[in-house]
This record gives sequence, structure tokens and C-alpha cells, in this order.
Amino acid sequence: MTLWGGVFAEPTDDDLRRLNDSLPFDRRLAHEDVIASIAYARALGMAGVLTEQEVDLIVSGLEAIQNEMADGTFVFQPGDEDIHSAVERRLIELVGEVGGKLHTGRSRNDQVATDFRLWVMQALDTLAAQVKEVQRALVQRAAPLVHVLMPGYTHLQPAQPISAAHWLMSYFWALARDVERIQQTRSRTAISPLGAGALAGTPLPIDREDLAWSLGFRGVTENSLDAVSDRDFVLEALFVMAVLGLHLSRLAEDIILFSNPSFGYLRLHDRYSTGSSLMPQKRNADSMELTRGKAGRLISNLTTVMVMLKGLPSGYNKDLQEDKEALFDSYDTLNQLLPVVTGTLLTLTIDEEAMRRALGEEMLATELADYLVEKGLPFRQAHHVVGRVVRLAQEEGLKLSELPIEALRTFSELFEEDVAAVFDFDRSAARRRARGGTAPEAVMEQITLARTMLGI
Amino acid sequence: MTLWGGVFAEPTDDDLRRLNDSLPFDRRLAHEDVIASIAYARALGMAGVLTEQEVDLIVSGLEAIQNEMADGTFVFQPGDEDIHSAVERRLIELVGEVGGKLHTGRSRNDQVATDFRLWVMQALDTLAAQVKEVQRALVQRAAPLVHVLMPGYTHLQPAQPISAAHWLMSYFWALARDVERIQQTRSRTAISPLGAGALAGTPLPIDREDLAWSLGFRGVTENSLDAVSDRDFVLEALFVMAVLGLHLSRLAEDIILFSNPSFGYLRLHDRYSTGSSLMPQKRNADSMELTRGKAGRLISNLTTVMVMLKGLPSGYNKDLQEDKEALFDSYDTLNQLLPVVTGTLLTLTIDEEAMRRALGEEMLATELADYLVEKGLPFRQAHHVVGRVVRLAQEEGLKLSELPIEALRTFSELFEEDVAAVFDFDRSAARRRARGGTAPEAVMEQITLARTMLGI
Amino acid sequence: MTLWGGVFAEPTDDDLRRLNDSLPFDRRLAHEDVIASIAYARALGMAGVLTEQEVDLIVSGLEAIQNEMADGTFVFQPGDEDIHSAVERRLIELVGEVGGKLHTGRSRNDQVATDFRLWVMQALDTLAAQVKEVQRALVQRAAPLVHVLMPGYTHLQPAQPISAAHWLMSYFWALARDVERIQQTRSRTAISPLGAGALAGTPLPIDREDLAWSLGFRGVTENSLDAVSDRDFVLEALFVMAVLGLHLSRLAEDIILFSNPSFGYLRLHDRYSTGSSLMPQKRNADSMELTRGKAGRLISNLTTVMVMLKGLPSGYNKDLQEDKEALFDSYDTLNQLLPVVTGTLLTLTIDEEAMRRALGEEMLATELADYLVEKGLPFRQAHHVVGRVVRLAQEEGLKLSELPIEALRTFSELFEEDVAAVFDFDRSAARRRARGGTAPEAVMEQITLARTMLGI
Amino acid sequence: MTLWGGVFAEPTDDDLRRLNDSLPFDRRLAHEDVIASIAYARALGMAGVLTEQEVDLIVSGLEAIQNEMADGTFVFQPGDEDIHSAVERRLIELVGEVGGKLHTGRSRNDQVATDFRLWVMQALDTLAAQVKEVQRALVQRAAPLVHVLMPGYTHLQPAQPISAAHWLMSYFWALARDVERIQQTRSRTAISPLGAGALAGTPLPIDREDLAWSLGFRGVTENSLDAVSDRDFVLEALFVMAVLGLHLSRLAEDIILFSNPSFGYLRLHDRYSTGSSLMPQKRNADSMELTRGKAGRLISNLTTVMVMLKGLPSGYNKDLQEDKEALFDSYDTLNQLLPVVTGTLLTLTIDEEAMRRALGEEMLATELADYLVEKGLPFRQAHHVVGRVVRLAQEEGLKLSELPIEALRTFSELFEEDVAAVFDFDRSAARRRARGGTAPEAVMEQITLARTMLGI
Repeated sequence: MTLWGGVFAEPTDDDLRRLNDSLPFDRRLAHEDVIASIAYARALGMAGVLTEQEVDLIVSGLEAIQNEMADGTFVFQPGDEDIHSAVERRLIELVGEVGGKLHTGRSRNDQVATDFRLWVMQALDTLAAQVKEVQRALVQRAAPLVHVLMPGYTHLQPAQPISAAHWLMSYFWALARDVERIQQTRSRTAISPLGAGALAGTPLPIDREDLAWSLGFRGVTENSLDAVSDRDFVLEALFVMAVLGLHLSRLAEDIILFSNPSFGYLRLHDRYSTGSSLMPQKRNADSMELTRGKAGRLISNLTTVMVMLKGLPSGYNKDLQEDKEALFDSYDTLNQLLPVVTGTLLTLTIDEEAMRRALGEEMLATELADYLVEKGLPFRQAHHVVGRVVRLAQEEGLKLSELPIEALRTFSELFEEDVAAVFDFDRSAARRRARGGTAPEAVMEQITLARTMLGI
Repeated sequence: MTLWGGVFAEPTDDDLRRLNDSLPFDRRLAHEDVIASIAYARALGMAGVLTEQEVDLIVSGLEAIQNEMADGTFVFQPGDEDIHSAVERRLIELVGEVGGKLHTGRSRNDQVATDFRLWVMQALDTLAAQVKEVQRALVQRAAPLVHVLMPGYTHLQPAQPISAAHWLMSYFWALARDVERIQQTRSRTAISPLGAGALAGTPLPIDREDLAWSLGFRGVTENSLDAVSDRDFVLEALFVMAVLGLHLSRLAEDIILFSNPSFGYLRLHDRYSTGSSLMPQKRNADSMELTRGKAGRLISNLTTVMVMLKGLPSGYNKDLQEDKEALFDSYDTLNQLLPVVTGTLLTLTIDEEAMRRALGEEMLATELADYLVEKGLPFRQAHHVVGRVVRLAQEEGLKLSELPIEALRTFSELFEEDVAAVFDFDRSAARRRARGGTAPEAVMEQITLARTMLGI
Repeated sequence: MTLWGGVFAEPTDDDLRRLNDSLPFDRRLAHEDVIASIAYARALGMAGVLTEQEVDLIVSGLEAIQNEMADGTFVFQPGDEDIHSAVERRLIELVGEVGGKLHTGRSRNDQVATDFRLWVMQALDTLAAQVKEVQRALVQRAAPLVHVLMPGYTHLQPAQPISAAHWLMSYFWALARDVERIQQTRSRTAISPLGAGALAGTPLPIDREDLAWSLGFRGVTENSLDAVSDRDFVLEALFVMAVLGLHLSRLAEDIILFSNPSFGYLRLHDRYSTGSSLMPQKRNADSMELTRGKAGRLISNLTTVMVMLKGLPSGYNKDLQEDKEALFDSYDTLNQLLPVVTGTLLTLTIDEEAMRRALGEEMLATELADYLVEKGLPFRQAHHVVGRVVRLAQEEGLKLSELPIEALRTFSELFEEDVAAVFDFDRSAARRRARGGTAPEAVMEQITLARTMLGI
Repeated sequence: MTLWGGVFAEPTDDDLRRLNDSLPFDRRLAHEDVIASIAYARALGMAGVLTEQEVDLIVSGLEAIQNEMADGTFVFQPGDEDIHSAVERRLIELVGEVGGKLHTGRSRNDQVATDFRLWVMQALDTLAAQVKEVQRALVQRAAPLVHVLMPGYTHLQPAQPISAAHWLMSYFWALARDVERIQQTRSRTAISPLGAGALAGTPLPIDREDLAWSLGFRGVTENSLDAVSDRDFVLEALFVMAVLGLHLSRLAEDIILFSNPSFGYLRLHDRYSTGSSLMPQKRNADSMELTRGKAGRLISNLTTVMVMLKGLPSGYNKDLQEDKEALFDSYDTLNQLLPVVTGTLLTLTIDEEAMRRALGEEMLATELADYLVEKGLPFRQAHHVVGRVVRLAQEEGLKLSELPIEALRTFSELFEEDVAAVFDFDRSAARRRARGGTAPEAVMEQITLARTMLGI
């Protein structure tokens, strides 16, 4: 039974009903719907709209519904078009016609916005906690690798030696920004629309602030029309989730690449690998490929809601119902991915030897230029000299350190015997000790700061 | 039980398994998986890989599975990671170890591409038929309105009088393009990848063309690596669905606007209207708002798969698994929307009087300019003259026809008494009789052509 | 001349050069590139890498370049592949080989991130100021309309009477959230990557914090690899711009609708209207249509960068160069739109009579239900009763207030003569005086709060 | 000077004018605007609206404009709001007031749709030709590599040996689908809207078909309202370009990976590589990274237009103006990328030795399973046996061929001495000779078919 049949002479078409009903997904708001209704009933009591007895009766009915939900004994009926209808219908079954007083001065327009904001607040808290688990795993795996060198890449070409810990920690900071964004989004979500009514505000003397605080909101909306039209909190939540997903997709790409045997830096644990139906030898990084691939849906869920909002007139429009499935999907996706990322990181085998073997002396070309700079050559000229040196070495099939000093001196007379000291990967890393650099001591400071941020 | 455990010493992590398993959505490919397996078993028989008895045994097992699927008695097991595993697992239960021969020379990589293409072919056929129902409804509603005039808008400002039938038929042609695109997409989808193996092709002497034809494909892929990497058919299907959704969103917008009482041209039937939980008088066009709002997810499902494919290395990657939910969602969305659009159109009340009442003489300004053009004034000058005439009428608060001839003649001496004939809405429409124009006879020709296209 | 030719035996292909060169768009970073280079030169001096004289010489050269930029006398050369190359090339022309020392320990990877962050900080400040102008215009137009009623819509169907000021102010609050997001994004952008080098950090004893503060940053990046890979600040800036654009698109939609003559609430000023090449009478709201339509590119620019980042390996990759055009385009779009929105609002004609004429008694149906509620009927039952009353009135072609009391009493005996008082639009609005409601006094409080926020 | 000032009392606001004017981008339609105007003038002549002399005068004026455009002597004026205004303004300057007769019965709404369709037809032809150049390069590089083996990957893990030619040719077929889609899109674009007027059709007795054919269209639109509202051709063109861009992004990813020294299969030519401002040794694949990264904007340009169209009412709305920049950008992007891709492919160094060195015996695990299958073991069991064999080899640190026969026989007694023949990469490839497989003879057939398709 719908909440609104009076004005209509004929029942709703079945196809339309199926299209329109949001119960298949908004039932996830059951808990929030009930607690917001309990708070609302109490507010109606404080405002003198309901008697104390009526409040008690309604609250007891809602608590019974909450128990049924928790037990799994709540039975949805064919006519329940959404979670709000289902709860009100059941309430009236349980407490009689007085249950029909709960909706006084309230509209589904402010109700669903309230419920959904409460749900999003909780969802963001859960994700923040899961992200911190990934950060913890990164710190845990990085700490023992501070002195382990691996090729650092730019353009996926060998660039300079870096600490393997530095590589892992680079993702820590991306995730730290995610946590900050999640917290700010949560704060902007925690504003109560309850009391906005359908669009024009409530005619009842309800204390909206008090009602808001009782539900864990930190304030109330200032304009009832905006309150029912606004889905910024959904956009923001989808955005922070999409960015988080992008960070994970980049980490996943690194892990997929580095566990290819041509690199061989990493090997996924059996528990985090999967096989092939045809090729018996396969060990695939399905978990990381899905982490990468699911960035698509995380981006698109944001697009879904943005497109829906484009050009929408003010006031509630049914289009807004499209906000929920998108957000549920993004949340579920990350909620599933994050523990897998944590587990993958914690169980990875890291092959320090393979990392070191992959270092090539060309990655010290900048060091060689710096050597000339220290002898007074402007950097730009030093860069050109070393470029020509590297080309010579390639043509001769020699390492840089194997080029005779005479050959070097044909490019610049500043080269002397002490140039030999340059060809040392550890020295290259150790020199980069400014804040944020890859020198072991700088990486150790990073890790210390990270631990402080995590409270570990 | 997975199909591939041999090389692993430890079982898959539970979180990963949940993330990885595609059964919750790819079970929709059950029918296609079974029929493609039956055809494949027969091809293995023709190639001499299986004996005739083995083929018979396997086919009988697959047919039994098909029956179980149809009956709803097929039971999925916890270890079934996807529909392919489930079918093979059940096959072996039913026919014994010989069932393990079915996967010879086949990989899930070519298998899933085959199944999914078959599913898409069927889905496109269904949508094409549903679109034609909408077209039929448009023709049916348009035919009696050929002579009914309404304001035609550009920039949502009154522009020129048009036939109400012309307005409705404008959507017919957009949908006709959709049907054509659906058909071309179906044709490009109907190419069989079966026999591509994991990526390198099958080592068995299978007749791929024959196998393809037996399944309703019109040809086979020419490169096995491309065959397992390619998801163009998914992109195309998602694109044609998104464009269809955009067309429907525009029709929906028109209907929403025109059923607002300030316009009042349309009234949705009770069966296609919905009410409010708070405001007893409301008659909302939820169906049309959802039609408009769901364009968001249709666009985004395409984005999902495009993003997933971006920068993906060649060969099968697990990311590709993300192709299915997006397409299922777009299909289900349209499959639900289209009958509601048809029903809404067929039951709409069209208020011809309200349409005519909304015609204003300013919408004849172009006629007035044409009047001057016929008297020899270049159009550009006529346009300026009439613009000034319209401004005067607005300032005076008069209709154009109420301006005295002397007033008109202050702008141009070409105005004469015969100008009065211009102020006739029907004449304006009737003049536009070139092909595709809004004159009743031209609209009637449109409708005739449309009926021919629909075969009605 | 490129900065890096040494290692190559052959020059770059011309097509590639055209594709690769970013000068056509990154020249917009000229100012930031020069001031960051001045600060960097001073930091090199403090670190003892350059002598005081060298610093003075380089700074004087950079200042000369700054003047050339300001004068428009700076000449780009064919070999300048980006703004950084152009500045360094010109510096060496001006001050000689010592100019080649500026790039010591710096990479374009940290340089471009620094420049771009500085640019974004400035752009966000500009937009925030422009948004506040729109907010100011809303307050200015709303204040005299506090007591003016118009139909409030949900589902674009008449819902309840609201204050016209309330409608306008609903956009104020959406924009207030935009301003808050802009500020938070600016804060997260104001972190300096300078000193991260190519990816591994700088080997020079530069004081990164000091350098950062001298440029207006509030802190420094903690990991050099993250510093050059991170484009979160671009994503955030694009997101806050897209959401702002969505808010504007909704305001635009309202204005377009309400200036259609069937509504007739608004009339755009001649200065903010445009005409038709064919139809002399047309007054189109092109400005608002573009405001609505451009939401598309604002959303898509965010998508562009998200897609680009998906699955990108860590470290700088050339793909990242795609971050700039998207952001420049979103900024330019809003920078152009916002003053037009402000101007449109400030010059709109608001037809208070047309608004009031559009109020219909059915919009008081909720009042009627509340009347019954006050007499003790549970709201849900009252809703059904009133729904039936409304249906009767429609069937009879009467206003609600025209229904005889006897007719009302057939639905409920609670109806009495005092029901007449319900049919009063002003009373309906005035009852909604809870915070955020549409009652004149509540709207006045809103406006007072808004003025405080704007400091006016 | 605008084309429409008459009705307005005040001039347009400057900010709005800047926002509104499309000349900065639609000037690219200059050629199409002039030729369509010439054809239209002739059609007006045939219809008796213009005299022969008037037609001649107007056509001569338009031809003069065409020459000015070609010479670069055409001067745009401040008041030209779009290319149509500019051409008409100049025409009147050149031929006098008679030029003002050209716009009779025409609107910019049908004019711009005509111009843009003509432009798109030409653009699609150009892209198709450029794609074929890439295909030609693929065939040219593939042909000599038919017998060269490399690792084939799935999940970026070594899967089975494939022919290097097979890898290259996999992209040929993706591009072949692009070409087919381009052609179908072109065909659907080649429908003339000219004669649709503003929205209601032309009142003049113009022969629309004849006019269409004279411009190279293959037919005319059937509904004038649809004709001016429809942007399907833009969506389709953007879609086929986006898919093409995705294909290129995947090819780019392969090339980036395979030119990383850990793989070492490919080396970009100096002419198609770029360097680093800091690191003298770098050889970056900037061209391929941009190819990958620009997929983002290609996808987003499609989104831009889709979002713009969502929920747009029928008839021309100014939002539609947003269709052009998006399409110009996608076209320019691909027009720049495609020759770089061709050049990169034609000049790549392919290291056949490195490819073969990367083959590992585990990639023959499927062969080993097939060996058991041929001895009668069902494939699923054979797969499990071989999985365990592979695990043993890994634990022992041996190649598969180094495992003693006794060890193999502990897993299955079917292993016999003849198993040694299995460990042969060339044999593995050669067995896959079914159509589309990686066997040299099958690849040679592919190449032959491809050459036929290209007409070479």
C-alpha cells in the first residue's frame, strides 16, 4: 500500500511500480530510517504534537521494527515502495492508527536526505578505518627496506636508484590525503535536513538543532528548499572514493608490473594469486587487476550522479533517487578492495636481490653531471657532456665506469680519477637526504612521521 | 572447487575470493554458456578429439544442466567462482571424469567472450523490439494530431506554431537511428572468438567457422590475441544504449514540462503518475523523471568500460571482468524504461485546447518578415523591421494584429491592408510543406513513411 | 633548443615535437615559473650552491624576463618545448652560461608541479571571489521579495507556496558549500613539491620549508616520489569547479523555465538576452542555456584527468601533462560564466503578479490535512481524506474553497466552518517559521546570516 | 553587428557577448559555411525566390569570400558573433543589400547543422586514411616477424609463446573495426538538415533532396524539429574516435612496457624518443605516454556532449553550441597522434633475441597438459597434474625439462620419455594453426588477408 493513493482513481501500472520502487536498494537505509524516526517522534513529543503516550507507543513500535530488522524477521510486503513506506506500514500494524501520526510535518523528501546522510557518515568512517589499515601495512613493509635500493622510474624508464621503502611510502601520503578528504566530507555531510518538510519547511514548532544533535549531526540546513534538493554530500563522497580508487589503481599497476618475471621484484602470495583454467603454470595478480579495473566504476559512479544533477530544476525531483545505487556501489567496491590490498601487501614476497640487480650505471648519469657541477661547470653544460658520455658508452657497449678516463676527458677536462667514486648506487641515494628525499635517514624520518599519524 | 588449484600450495584468501568471483553476475550467462559448450563438444567430436560416445555423454549432461537451470533446480556451490566453473563442476558430477574433457583446447578467455557476445546479440534484439513499440506508440498518438497546433520552441521560448504530431514524430526519427545502430552493433558482435584459446589459438583441428555458424555467429575472429582482448562489442552496445537513453531523457523532459499546469498540454494517466507522502494533491511524473535521471547511469556504464580499457596491455587481463555488470545494468535499465515510456505515451491525455491557447501572435513574426520579403525587401532588412514592430507592440501592450496599419507603415511602406492575412497560425504551419516540414500534408507523409518502416 | 639533446644522435621528429610540446598551453604558467625560479635561485644561494653574485645575476635575468612577459616583448623561439625551456633559454641569453646553473638539483618534474600548484592557488582565489559576487546578487535580489509568494515545485509540479526570496536564497547555500570546498582545496594545494627533483629528492642542502614559505606555500611534500606523481590537487580543483558548475546549471534551468511565457515569472534584461537570425520576436536566454550546457565540459574535464591517472605507474609519466588543459578550460569556463550569472541576476525583471497568479488552491492540500491533524486525525488518514477531497474538486471543476462544507463532511466529520481559514497562501507560508523555513521571518533570518557570511 | 538586433532596446552585455560568441571555434566551419551558402543560393534561385542575377551576384560574393578565406585576407570584425554572421556581413559588404536575401527561409539552426555535418564527413575521411597508415605500418613490421617468438601474456604474466607478428597484427584488427565504424558513422552523418528552418521547415518550394545531393549528402532529414535538435552524428563521431583512442592507448602501453629495459623487446628510435632536463641518460617514450594519456580527453569529449544533451528539451537550445569544441578537440588529438604512432612503429627497433630469451619453459605447461590429454587423460585432470609438476619444478629450482622422468611419473604414469619433445617453443606455436592462431602459416594468412583489405 502506498502512502499517497487518495487522489488517484486507478492503481499504478505494474511496470512503472517496478521501475519506481526503490526498496530493492534503499532497504539498506533501514537502520537509519528507524533511528531517525525515533528521534523525530521524540521531537514531535517535545513540540507538543504528540502526547507522551503516543511517543512511547510509536518509539516502542519502531524499536520492535529495529529488532525485526536485526533478527531478519522483518517481512517486506509487495506494496512497500521504499524503506520509508515499509517502516510506516509495519509501524501501523504494530501500534495501530497512532503510527500514522509519525509522518506529521515530515516528508519523504527530508526523511530520505536525513537517512542517507546518516548512512554516508557511517560509511565514510568505515572506509577511513580501512584505508588506515592499508597505510599501516605500507609502513610495516617499508620499515625493513629503508636501505634496500631499487630502480626508480620516470616514464617507466630507469631514472635514479631509490629506497624500496621510499617507493612503498609514496602511497602512504596519497592515502593520507584520502583520509583528510574523507574527514572533511564527513563533516559537511553531518548537517541535518530534517524539518525541511517537502520543500517549504515544517509548520511545527520542532527544535531542529536539538533533533539534529540527537542523531549525531553537527548542525542543520539553513534553507528548506536547498535541503531537499542538495546532493553535494553524495558527490563529495563519490569523489573521495574515486580518488582513493585511483590511488589504489596506481599501486596495483606497480605491483602488477613488478611481479612480472622480467622485473621479478615482487611475488604475490599464493593466497593472493589466482590461476588459469587452461594454463597450469599461471599465477595471476587478479586482485591487483581488479583493483586497477574497478577505478572505472568508481569514476563512473561519480559521473552518474553528476549527470543526473545537471540541469535539474530546484526542489525534489525523482531523478534524485539515482543517487543511492551509485554510492552503495562505490562503497561496496572499496569496502571489498581495501582488505584485499592490505592482505596483498602484508603477504608480498619482495626480492631485494632482483631489485638491486636491476640497477644500471646509467641511473647514475645525474650523479656524473653533479660531479662536473661541483667542479664548476654550469649544470646545463654538464648535462650535455654526460649525455654524450652515455651515448658513447652505449655505442661501445660499456658501462659508464668502464669508460677510460681519457675517453671521458675528450668531453670535459674536468673529469679526473676521483670520478670513480660516483659509480656507487648507495652513495647516490644517501646524498638525497633533504626532507622527503630517498636517503635512508630521510626515509626513516618519513616512517616516523607516518607512525605518529597512525598513532602506532 | 576452482579449475586451477594445482600449482598453488595454499588456498585463496576469502576476501580475495569474494572480490574475484564473478558468479553473482555472470550466472546470467548460464544459458549461453551451456549452448556454447554443447556446440563446442560437438566441434571436438568433429575434430576427432572426443569420440562420438563422449560427445553424446557430455551433451546429455549439458542438456540436463540446461533443464536444471530452466527449472531453477540447479544448485550453485560455494567453490563455483564463475558460471563456467559451475557448469563444468556440475557436468563432471553428472557424467563423470569425461566431463573434464570438455575444456580441452578451450580457455575461459575465449569462452566468456563467446558467451557474452551471444548474450549481447539477444539483448540487442530485445531492445530493438521494445524501441519499435515506443515508435509505434508515437505514430499512434501522432496520427490524430496532424492538424492540431502547439507552440514550437527554440531556447524554450515560443518560436513558431507546429503540428503536435510533428513534435511527437520528431522522437520517432531519433529512435529510428537507434534501431539502425543497434542492428549494426549486433552485426559486429556476431563474430565468434571461440577457438582463440587463452590467447594463442587452439592446437586442435576445429572448424571454427562451422562452430560459429552453429551458434548463430556470422563469422570468426581473425587473430586470437585480439579475440580475447577485444571488448569493442561491449563499448558499442553500451554506446547505443546510452544514446537511446539520451533520446528518452529529452522526450521525458518535454513531457515533464508540458504536464506542468502552467503549460497544461499533457496530463499523465493515473496509472503512470505517482503521489506524495506529504502533499495529498500531488500528481508527479516520476516515470519521466526516472527516464531522464537514468541517462546518467547509461552514460556512466559506458565510461566504466572505457576507463577500464584505457592503457590495458594486450591479452586477457582480469580488469575485463568489469565489462559485464555495466552492460547488464544498462540493459536492465532500458528494458524496464521502454515499456513504461510506451505505456505513458499511450495513456497521456493531450489537451488540444491548451496547446492552441498558448499560441501567441509573436510566433508569426517570421511570417510578417516573409510578407515583406515577398514584397521585395531583402530578408535581413525585413527581419530588422519586424523586430522593431514586435518591440512596439510589446511596449504598447498590443497584439501584432492590433497594431494599426499606420503604425506598421512607420517602419516600412511595404505594409498594406493585406497584412492581416498573415496573422493566422494555421496558414503559418500550412506553408511549411517541404519534405520534413510541419504542414499537415508533410506530417502525414512522415507518418506514412514511419508506418512503412514499422511494417504497420 | 631542448634541454636534453646530448644522448641522442638524431633530432626529434616534427610530428612528435608538435604533439609533445606543451608551450601552447603551459605558457600560462610563465609568471609562476619565473617567481618560483627566483625563489629557487635564492635557495641555491643560501645552500652555498651559487655565489651571491651568481644569485644576483640570475635573479636580475629572471626579473628582466618577468618584465618582458608583462610587456609582451618576450619572444618564444621554435625550439622552446615548454615554458621551463623558454625561460631557461632566455635566461642564458640574458646572463650567459651562469644561467645554466639555475637547474642544478631541480627537475622539470618538481618544477612544473610547483608552478602549477601556484597557479591553481591563485585561480581558486579568483573563483571564490566571483562566487561571492553571485551570492551577493542573490541576497540583493532576495531581500525585497521576502513577502512575495510563488509556487514551490517538487517534481516540477506545484507543491506548496514559498517565498520568492526563499527560492533565490536556496542557491546561496549551495554556493556557500562551493566556497568552503574551494578553500579546503586551496589549502591542500598549498604544499610545495620543490626539492623533490626528478623523483628521488634533491642532493643539495636546500631548506625546503623556507623555500616553500617564500612562495606562499604552507608546507612541503613528505615523499619526493609522491611529490612528482601526485595530481590530487588538480582532481580536487576540477571537482569543486564541476560541482559549482552543476549548481549554476540548476539555477540556469530554473531561470530558463521561469522566463518561458507560460510561467512568466522572470524576464531577462535586454542586455542578457539574445535573438534569432530568422525569428524577429525571439528573446532567448542564451546565457543561461550555456551555463546549463557547460556543466558538461566541467564534468568531463574532471573525467579527463581521472582517466589519465587510472593505472598510471608511480613516478612522473608524460601522461600527466594532460592535467593542464583540462584545468585551464574549467577555470576559463567558470571565470566567464560567473560574471554573466551575476549580471543576469542583477538585471532580471521579476513579475510578482505572475508568481502569485500561478498559486493554486491545491497547493494548500497539506494545510487541509494539517487542519484535520489538529482536530486529532492521524496524519496518514488525513492525507487520504484530503486526497479524495482534491479528486472530487477536480472532477467537479471547483477550487477546494468552493467545495461546500457538506461535501467535505462526507469525507470526514472533522471538517467545520473554520476550514475556510485554511485557504490562505500567506498563512501557509507564515506557518513555516522553523529555522530554514519559508516564513517571511525565517527567510529574513536566512538573509541576515548570509549577509554576515559575506561581510555586508 | 548581430543578425537580430531589432527587438532589443539595449545592446548585449560584453561579458555575455564573449561567452556567447562562437566565432573563436566555429570559424573552422568557414569553408563549409560558404559552400553550403552557395548551394543554398542556387536552390533559392531554382525555387524562384531569387532571380538568376541575384543568384549570380550572391554566388560571386561568396566565392570572393572563399578566396579571402583561402588567402587569409578575410577580416573578422568585432561584431561577428559566429561564422554565419561573419559571412553574411561580408557578403552584404561585397554585393550590397541583395546579400541580405541569402538567409530567406533559412535559420542558423539548420545552417550550422549542415555546416557541421559537412565538416564531420571530411574529418572522418581524413581519420580513416590515417588509421589505414597505422595498419599499413603494422603489416609492414609484422611480415618479417612471422617466425619470431615472444612471450604472450595474460594478466601480464607469461602465458604461451606467440609470434611477434601475431602480437602486432592483433592491433590491425582492432583498427579495422575502427575503420568500419568510421564509415558507418560517416554514412549516418551524410543526411542534410538544410531546409528545416528554425524548427518548423521551410515555407519555400526548395528541392531539399537536390540541394542535399549537390553538397555530397546522401539524403535529407524527415522531420524539421528533429533535424535541428539532433546531434547523434556528433556523439557517434566522438564515440568512434574514443574507441580508436582506446585501441591506441593499449598499443602504447605494450610499447612502453616492452621498451622498458627489463623487457628490452623494443627500442624507440631517437627521432621518437625524448630526454630529461635533469637526467642525461633518459630515453623516454613520451609519444606513447601521450597516446595513452590522451585517451582521457577522447573519452571525456564524448561525455561532454552526452551530458549536454541529457534532459534537453526538443528544438534548438544554445547548449548545443557545446558540440563543436569537443569534436574539434578529439579530431585534432587523433589527427596529431596517428602519424606519430605510424612513425613510431615504422622506426622501432625490435630485439628478436631479447624476445626469445624471455621465453620460459613454464609457458609450455599447457603443452605438457595436452601431452597427457593425447594419452587419454581428461584435460581437467591433466591440468591439475601439470600444476603440481610446475610447483615441484619451482620448489626444486629446475626447468620443467630438467625434471627427471621419474619425478614426472610420481604425478602420472602417462609421462614417458617422449615427453622431451614437448619442450620446444616453436612446436608450441606451430601447433596453433587454426584460423586466427599464432602458427606461422596462420599468421601469414592473416597478413595476406590484411594486405587485401588495405589494397596492397
